[in-house]
Amino acid sequence: MIEITLPDGTVKTYEKGVTPMDVARDISEGLARNVISAKFDDVTVETVTPLKKDGKLVLFTWNDDEGKKAFWHSSSHVVAQAIEELYPGVKLTIGPAIENGFYYDIDFGEHSISEKDFPRIEQRALEIARGKHPYQMREVSKKDALEYYKKQGNEYKVELISALEDGTITFCDHDTFTDLCRGGHIPNTGFIKALKLLSVAGAYWRGDEKNPQLTRVYGISFPKQKDLTEYLALLEEAKKRDHRKLGKELELFTFSQKVGQGLPLWLPKGAALRERLEQFLKKAQKKAGYEMVISPHIGQKELYVTSGHYAKYGEDSFQPIRTPKEDEEFLLKPMNCPHHCEIYNARPFSYRELPKRYAEFGTVYRYEQSGELHGLTRVRGFTQDDAHIFCTQDQLDQEFKNVIDLSLYVLGSLGFENFTAQVSVRDPEKPEKYIGSVDNWEKAEQAIINAAEEKGLKYVVVPGEAAFYGPKLDFMVKDALGRNWQLGTIQVDYNLPERFDLTYKGSDNELHRPVMIHRAPFGSMERFVALLLEHSGGNFPLWLTPQQAILLPVSEKHEKYAEKVLKSLENHEIRALVDNRNETVGKKIREAEMNKIPFMLIVGENEEAKGTLSVRRHGGEDLGEISLEAFTDLVQKEINSTLKSF
Amino acid sequence: MIEITLPDGTVKTYEKGVTPMDVARDISEGLARNVISAKFDDVTVETVTPLKKDGKLVLFTWNDDEGKKAFWHSSSHVVAQAIEELYPGVKLTIGPAIENGFYYDIDFGEHSISEKDFPRIEQRALEIARGKHPYQMREVSKKDALEYYKKQGNEYKVELISALEDGTITFCDHDTFTDLCRGGHIPNTGFIKALKLLSVAGAYWRGDEKNPQLTRVYGISFPKQKDLTEYLALLEEAKKRDHRKLGKELELFTFSQKVGQGLPLWLPKGAALRERLEQFLKKAQKKAGYEMVISPHIGQKELYVTSGHYAKYGEDSFQPIRTPKEDEEFLLKPMNCPHHCEIYNARPFSYRELPKRYAEFGTVYRYEQSGELHGLTRVRGFTQDDAHIFCTQDQLDQEFKNVIDLSLYVLGSLGFENFTAQVSVRDPEKPEKYIGSVDNWEKAEQAIINAAEEKGLKYVVVPGEAAFYGPKLDFMVKDALGRNWQLGTIQVDYNLPERFDLTYKGSDNELHRPVMIHRAPFGSMERFVALLLEHSGGNFPLWLTPQQAILLPVSEKHEKYAEKVLKSLENHEIRALVDNRNETVGKKIREAEMNKIPFMLIVGENEEAKGTLSVRRHGGEDLGEISLEAFTDLVQKEINSTLKSF
Repeated sequence: MIEITLPDGTVKTYEKGVTPMDVARDISEGLARNVISAKFDDVTVETVTPLKKDGKLVLFTWNDDEGKKAFWHSSSHVVAQAIEELYPGVKLTIGPAIENGFYYDIDFGEHSISEKDFPRIEQRALEIARGKHPYQMREVSKKDALEYYKKQGNEYKVELISALEDGTITFCDHDTFTDLCRGGHIPNTGFIKALKLLSVAGAYWRGDEKNPQLTRVYGISFPKQKDLTEYLALLEEAKKRDHRKLGKELELFTFSQKVGQGLPLWLPKGAALRERLEQFLKKAQKKAGYEMVISPHIGQKELYVTSGHYAKYGEDSFQPIRTPKEDEEFLLKPMNCPHHCEIYNARPFSYRELPKRYAEFGTVYRYEQSGELHGLTRVRGFTQDDAHIFCTQDQLDQEFKNVIDLSLYVLGSLGFENFTAQVSVRDPEKPEKYIGSVDNWEKAEQAIINAAEEKGLKYVVVPGEAAFYGPKLDFMVKDALGRNWQLGTIQVDYNLPERFDLTYKGSDNELHRPVMIHRAPFGSMERFVALLLEHSGGNFPLWLTPQQAILLPVSEKHEKYAEKVLKSLENHEIRALVDNRNETVGKKIREAEMNKIPFMLIVGENEEAKGTLSVRRHGGEDLGEISLEAFTDLVQKEINSTLKSF
Repeated sequence: MIEITLPDGTVKTYEKGVTPMDVARDISEGLARNVISAKFDDVTVETVTPLKKDGKLVLFTWNDDEGKKAFWHSSSHVVAQAIEELYPGVKLTIGPAIENGFYYDIDFGEHSISEKDFPRIEQRALEIARGKHPYQMREVSKKDALEYYKKQGNEYKVELISALEDGTITFCDHDTFTDLCRGGHIPNTGFIKALKLLSVAGAYWRGDEKNPQLTRVYGISFPKQKDLTEYLALLEEAKKRDHRKLGKELELFTFSQKVGQGLPLWLPKGAALRERLEQFLKKAQKKAGYEMVISPHIGQKELYVTSGHYAKYGEDSFQPIRTPKEDEEFLLKPMNCPHHCEIYNARPFSYRELPKRYAEFGTVYRYEQSGELHGLTRVRGFTQDDAHIFCTQDQLDQEFKNVIDLSLYVLGSLGFENFTAQVSVRDPEKPEKYIGSVDNWEKAEQAIINAAEEKGLKYVVVPGEAAFYGPKLDFMVKDALGRNWQLGTIQVDYNLPERFDLTYKGSDNELHRPVMIHRAPFGSMERFVALLLEHSGGNFPLWLTPQQAILLPVSEKHEKYAEKVLKSLENHEIRALVDNRNETVGKKIREAEMNKIPFMLIVGENEEAKGTLSVRRHGGEDLGEISLEAFTDLVQKEINSTLKSF
């Protein structure tokens, strides 16, 4: 008999050789129908693997990441089988699951495929799936495994097997197909109800450009057709919302090959949007007792040696800047914190003056390889909405709560409602990894958890994820397409105050070390605007959007009235303009729709006579003919509903 | 007979050998009394030099820079004589006039002097001056000149004479004193009525640190005692107003050795002040049709090769920034214009869309040698209130006027009333030096002159001072101490539009080159704040000053009332705070005075009972007891009197 421990701590006793599927069935028939993968003592096993010792068992369904991983990896076997059948002589290499779906890297030899070949591959793969063939693992000796693939002339698998130890090699069979495989499959191919190939791309064998180029076939699969339909719709929507596309269409930012890749140039509408975001945060920060400071974009190398950033970024980042005559070396700043520490150090502080909260929209520069650059989300220069709070250990609790309040205010004002918090604390088994006293760490971790509790955050505590210099809290925000973005880290720091020898005079007249909190609710202006674009599809919250309304006179005759209304809107601080081009109102509406302008105000004979506006909402809703006053009220009400005062 | 042409074009005929003094006497006795120096055909001559050919004569008085130069140079002879008498055996080297006064570099040999020796030197110099000894030039052969100084053992003069050509060497005698001298003296020592030695410093012979170190004695002299008194008061005032001193006292900015010299860190009060200045300009710029943009602080080296800035700044400035893996080179931007050109290039423009006016508070970095750094006026990183206007040639006229309007608005709002404009145009004799068509240059120069005329500016036109790429206008601002600062250049540019191949589509459907205007009313935020500090002595215009009022409760009892008043002031957007430290009101007033807070509001029993404030103005004026409303009115009125809307 063996003892199987379940995740909730329940211990069950079974005969040796029991399978995860047996355990599932023992728990409930429903679970057994849905279980598709398992881990035993942290090792991935098949649902039919006989368990032969005491251990911890976790069962996974489609709703678990591990379940999806097994599902997609299993699907890659089916696609490989279909390709092998349709393109005889191809050589398979590896076919893992990825974040969304799977791929298989294949040497197509004399064949080649393109997107137009996808349907027949998909069709054959689904036929195979419908056969409900079970995945069966078997052990193979190294000799037999090598022989099997040598006979096929597959040098890739031979290379893989050569690196493995005899006795650890397994093959997986289903239907007529066999593959070298470590395991982790769903029970049988019948679970795969929907499958779609997404793209092909070139990929070097083992990622090394000196090796032969293979063809990587990307695909995804689902247990229900409906899931696939939804996924494809989401993909389509994500493409439409791609911030690079919207940023260009809405004229928010651009890149120039001459200036350099990864270095965004903010166009007037983008710069104005960023200014509104910055002013919004500045206003809230002022109320929260922050003070703005300004620091240069470079600093002596010595500064970053002191802070430890040189050790971290030095060799892999932008190289030091030398001067023509003197022996000085400067670095582009990768972080604002060293500068803020030096600002704190500009004069002595008493405990009565703390906390000091220094904020700066500080542009930092970090080198990224050109292949890793992506629109505004992965750049070489970005502006952090940075702040550093210097406080006493006793103030940490309250300061942390205040920062959470500010972060929640920011998220709420920008239409993010779906988020969780991740609290990163020490690895309790490696206390030597961390700087600062155990007592302070305990207080700091507790302060963060208390704050998260008190503010009613959904949060998880993750041991071992804290940086060596302090615990932190990250906001994980889900966007409108369900994708997760990490935003707004709040990081406690016991390290920099040491390194910069920061002090304050306590009530005991002795010098003490302040604690430091790093925080940036937006994270970076670039990445945040990208997220906003993709989350809102370019339909920004009304208070933020570049143009709130556009006046569309139906003919030249009504331009004067339109201009008069414009003045009045401007007096109400509504950002509007008049489209008095010689075009049809229909065309003007279509363009205003494309430019994501929330309100289209059509003015003609009737409106001018009555002093009204015919209001059309972005998306097509007709709000009818209303007075100017009613319209400004409408706008103000909508703004007030998202943008509350802090 | 010879013909002498005077600056106003008058031609007068005199006998050969007439002296400048004779000509002055011929014009008027008054002029003869005041003339102290002259130039003949652009060469400095003595007032007693016989003129022997036709030529242009300019006569100088104390009110001319050239007059002061002769006055101070002549004074250096008198001081040298005094020192030679008091410290026998010293070796004289050179003694030129400088911007304010003169110096003499002297090898004191076994002697040494310090400030406490100044009075007896000054006394002896003034005694000599009172002798009214005429300065008399005489030619000396090289041989005799060398012999004269060899006998004295003065190797410095020997070295100087050795480098001169025989036949060009002159000595100047007065009283018992003789010096090697090219000339340029006042008629006699009697003009020197006041004289003051200012400091001593070390200076290497010929500025080369491999040479022996000499003692440099600085001094200044005047034709009236009153002038000296005023000058010394000004010096004292300048010391008090030194922006480095005030910046520290008012906690506006700091420097850190770790961050690097010449790289200012703006402290909270300074950053807030800068933000107010920036918002002030942004608001005016918005009304003037500017659009803000944001560009990175680095760019590929190629960008600056294209713009020509690499050729100008490259070798003498911060060196290129390399990347770890890829063959890329970036530079810290020394100018924002290349980036703005690339922003303009992001999409095509029609003539109907011009002018485009891109503005940015853009921080640029230029290397300066550490010895040349000075507070905020000479730094290595500074933020320009930069903008670039891209317009058609036809729009240049109007755009230039608009920029002048904006510049005048900025100067007026910040308390600068004393300024002139300098218009720099081509050297008419070197047309080949300039890029762009002659026609466009003529139009541009005329546009600037028209604009200056129409706006009623006091201006001078300086031929040959234009850059090769376009004419410009500079504002020369006189501060409260009478010192000149160059501010707010408006520069026309035909060069960068060529280099960046900027175009717009004209009404003829063809592509044309826009003209570019660079302009920055503040110049740089750093230098402007320094100027403001020195001009105002830290007493900023009320709308700008960090703290507008401070509430001083006479005892703890009245703190509540003070806090209530504070809230009310904040609602009126008056920046105020309460000083509720346990100190006497007297001490609080002294500190508020030191912190240059414009209004001190004293509240006690009586004020609380009546709901009033006792108002004391910075500097001591007692405004008596007034109501809160009257006070806010007072503040608003004073703000409105300087800060008008644009």
